[in-house]
Amino acid sequence: MRVRIDADLEKGTIERTELPESATWLGGRALADSILFEEVPPACHPLGPGNRLVFAPGFFAGTSMPTASRMSVAGKSPLTGGIKESNVGGMAGITLAQLGVGAVVIRGISPGPSLKLLVFRHGSAELMDAPELGGLGNYETVECLKKRFGDGAVILSTGPCGEMKMSAATIAVTDTNGRPCRHAGRGGLGGVMGSKGLKAVVMDPEGSQLRKGADPGAFAEAVKEYTKILQSSKRTAFWRENGTAALIDVSHARGSLPTRNFTSGAYDKKDRINSDRLKVLVAQRKGAMGHACMRGCIIRCSNIFNDPQGRYLTSGLEYETIAMMGSNLDIDDLDTIAQMDFRCDDYGIDTIETGATLGILTETDLFRFGDGERAIQLLDEIGKGTVLGRILGQGVTTTAKVFGIARIPAVKGQSLPAHEPRSLKGLGVTYAVSPQGADHTAGFVAEEPFSKEGHTERSRKAQINMVIADSLGLCQFTGLRDDYGLFARLIGALAGKIPSAEEVWRIGRDALWKERTFNQAAGIGPGQDRLPEFMRSEVLPPNNSAFDVEDQDLDRVFGDYP
Amino acid sequence: MRVRIDADLEKGTIERTELPESATWLGGRALADSILFEEVPPACHPLGPGNRLVFAPGFFAGTSMPTASRMSVAGKSPLTGGIKESNVGGMAGITLAQLGVGAVVIRGISPGPSLKLLVFRHGSAELMDAPELGGLGNYETVECLKKRFGDGAVILSTGPCGEMKMSAATIAVTDTNGRPCRHAGRGGLGGVMGSKGLKAVVMDPEGSQLRKGADPGAFAEAVKEYTKILQSSKRTAFWRENGTAALIDVSHARGSLPTRNFTSGAYDKKDRINSDRLKVLVAQRKGAMGHACMRGCIIRCSNIFNDPQGRYLTSGLEYETIAMMGSNLDIDDLDTIAQMDFRCDDYGIDTIETGATLGILTETDLFRFGDGERAIQLLDEIGKGTVLGRILGQGVTTTAKVFGIARIPAVKGQSLPAHEPRSLKGLGVTYAVSPQGADHTAGFVAEEPFSKEGHTERSRKAQINMVIADSLGLCQFTGLRDDYGLFARLIGALAGKIPSAEEVWRIGRDALWKERTFNQAAGIGPGQDRLPEFMRSEVLPPNNSAFDVEDQDLDRVFGDYP
Repeated sequence: MRVRIDADLEKGTIERTELPESATWLGGRALADSILFEEVPPACHPLGPGNRLVFAPGFFAGTSMPTASRMSVAGKSPLTGGIKESNVGGMAGITLAQLGVGAVVIRGISPGPSLKLLVFRHGSAELMDAPELGGLGNYETVECLKKRFGDGAVILSTGPCGEMKMSAATIAVTDTNGRPCRHAGRGGLGGVMGSKGLKAVVMDPEGSQLRKGADPGAFAEAVKEYTKILQSSKRTAFWRENGTAALIDVSHARGSLPTRNFTSGAYDKKDRINSDRLKVLVAQRKGAMGHACMRGCIIRCSNIFNDPQGRYLTSGLEYETIAMMGSNLDIDDLDTIAQMDFRCDDYGIDTIETGATLGILTETDLFRFGDGERAIQLLDEIGKGTVLGRILGQGVTTTAKVFGIARIPAVKGQSLPAHEPRSLKGLGVTYAVSPQGADHTAGFVAEEPFSKEGHTERSRKAQINMVIADSLGLCQFTGLRDDYGLFARLIGALAGKIPSAEEVWRIGRDALWKERTFNQAAGIGPGQDRLPEFMRSEVLPPNNSAFDVEDQDLDRVFGDYP
Repeated sequence: MRVRIDADLEKGTIERTELPESATWLGGRALADSILFEEVPPACHPLGPGNRLVFAPGFFAGTSMPTASRMSVAGKSPLTGGIKESNVGGMAGITLAQLGVGAVVIRGISPGPSLKLLVFRHGSAELMDAPELGGLGNYETVECLKKRFGDGAVILSTGPCGEMKMSAATIAVTDTNGRPCRHAGRGGLGGVMGSKGLKAVVMDPEGSQLRKGADPGAFAEAVKEYTKILQSSKRTAFWRENGTAALIDVSHARGSLPTRNFTSGAYDKKDRINSDRLKVLVAQRKGAMGHACMRGCIIRCSNIFNDPQGRYLTSGLEYETIAMMGSNLDIDDLDTIAQMDFRCDDYGIDTIETGATLGILTETDLFRFGDGERAIQLLDEIGKGTVLGRILGQGVTTTAKVFGIARIPAVKGQSLPAHEPRSLKGLGVTYAVSPQGADHTAGFVAEEPFSKEGHTERSRKAQINMVIADSLGLCQFTGLRDDYGLFARLIGALAGKIPSAEEVWRIGRDALWKERTFNQAAGIGPGQDRLPEFMRSEVLPPNNSAFDVEDQDLDRVFGDYP
């Protein structure tokens, strides 16, 4: 039995219900989507009382299945104006699931004056006051909460950016070391949390239990098979050894590494920020590679990055951050990037969106390429909420609007992540049409990267498979997105009712359809299914390619939809 | 013969063509819409090279017909993201038309470095440099240009806000006294002009000729009939005597006067800002009521407002400005409001949008109700383009976004004007569904103001009739919107080919349809055809009414479309 917890911040009440039968096979993104689709008026303001914020552990979260305990955070996005699911690692998915919780729904706006906490203990959920946390960064917030609730507490929190309801604010999740360094980063869901007056969700894992499923034997057997596939994959070892930073070299080589505000796909100084460089610094300073963000992960792509004095600086110095704050800003120094990453994690602001934002700011006199010191100052302005900081904290589209900038690397209000669609045209199709806005985790397509044709079906399939992974709690690096048969056995053994392979497919298909339908009712027309104009008119070095997939092929992703 | 002038700012070229046969009956809004619909890629950025800015005198402009020489300014709006037609009085419509120009299309972006002028003289059009005008307000711009081109020059210009590409920037038009006090105010078309690098359009009226039409006798006869109707209308005399400020009392009485950030429909201090008060001050200071913004107007609703020392302060102190900067901000002093109006005109920013913006700013610590001094300071910040000023200059929706405000009096990104839809529900339907965003000149519906039903057809008809008026060049105060037969005779006598009454209707219907279709392709889905959420959840004193027209009745305005 999985329960749903509704915390009404306006009334100060908690309601506890069983998940309905329709959710038998649903977790994570699919479950969150169905809740939002049914309960949130699409035209509501994302920061108003009508919006809801959902935390939903993936379907397999908290079981013995490895690398399968991610969590979905979802709501109507202040950044895109549509449904947003931001998927996060760390310890929250496991812990909630092992406390028997299938979904947490935050509704209403606290009348204040104090910030609120939602506290889960074995068999109980409670709203509490936490006036002392106002304005605190995520690191200090977590320290305070550990003093109050014990060192073992698993914590979801929002930083000052979330309290200020910024459109690029994140929700932090503590990792295996209890640090708030994993983030539901995209779409500004931290701003939604802030608008509710909720500062943190605290989970005391005491009494939590491994989920064994309705048919523990069959489940254990299927997990064994799944684990074997995962362990034998070359990729698993590759990510563990090199971290996601390995993508700096990969992207540079294929010309898809955003560089100097999306004017190049290759970075001449990439050796100063790539995985090799990272590994040297990590080893010198006794940090760690092969770090797991959540318990039970066998990929372990994360890392711990220390400063030159060997003191902890940040964890999970990841590819997207290194590219968007490094090559995209021509900041060729991992120490500066790590300081920026720490600040973003602490203030609770998306590194991808913020990197893109500083990139376009080079069109003004407020920032120039390569100025790491100024970049850090600007992040501090965001964290403090100065007038300039408040602009930047809304992300690239609002910043462009305020400064009259027309060249905007964003789709549906959300900045492009660190994969250039002009050198990855199939991914460009996903960026253009995904209900999530430009999002590299919405359906990665790497095939025939320079072909202008053939991506429609690939993108649709990749998007559906990604929804399935996000619903099951699988990390995208598991790479197991196609194996509906194995998933069906795993789901069935856990749920006590076996889906067909087609029913597994339908988990993804239906959730994606709900996201798109919600967005349309929210006013996002298909005319927004387009990449930024400049990606068609400007060719990208070094491949000198422009995005040239026909509009009709973009429209067919959903237009031909079964 | 009417010509179309294309000025390509990128190439520095001028092209002169005859208007096509399809434009035989088109002028103003309908002509501008058809140009934009055919030539502007809907997904282009409003400030990018793909957008075009159109100036199109109304069809009757420059003839002997009174109160019928208004002009349409149109382009893709940086404020709404859709097609925008902003209709303006003053002398530009007459002058362009009498120089034989049916439409001016500005395309491309000037490579700089100098700002550009487009100069019309009898039989010629020319692009010229004007580096000396950079950053100048509209008043100083006009002074400089008169020195260069003569006191008789008619001038269209954009102020510093347009140069800064602000989303609420206007385009100023000189009035009968040669002052830049008439504005194409809504939708940020000044920002589009600024993005092109065009500072002003200068028209030397020398050699311009009254347009007499293909059948001068029949035209003169029909004009006589039209004029008689207009002169005998009680409203004509009412507006002349009281100005649009008369609406303060009217709106207060029906509870539709936006007060204190749209929290009331009546204003306890309305006697300090109403028409009676205005007339007293105007008389004391030897200003003028019954002032005509354009030559040949027999309504003459404008005024000249002097300061206490009897020096000119502003002209056209109009209802919308008085309400949005007066009652809506609880500023109960016409002198302060007039100073604000002057600044808005000089900097080139929309008084409606800016009044609404300062209204929501009362939710922050940056502004409080009644603080006229601070309001003026904030306008100065906009004019100077400080960081805060740049936010405010983008209007209410962007300002709300930056400061995390969820209660936003806007539709499709554009602020509501000074008519509360909770006490004017038919107008609320127009606000909600008009392709122009919330706009009181998009189709005013005053009937059964508190009924939740019956407005669908009224709003559709009012919108079509308004497009017809905007296309013909008629001021909305002519109130002659229904008389298709008379219009058909007037159009036919001027064009040499008589339309049927249905063809007159079709001018409006087709243009409106093009606006909507363009918007959809630009990504504005029907889900944006909604009033702000708070207008359904908050009842408005003193009538204690909320907006309760059903969504389906909103959708039927275009959904049932013939």
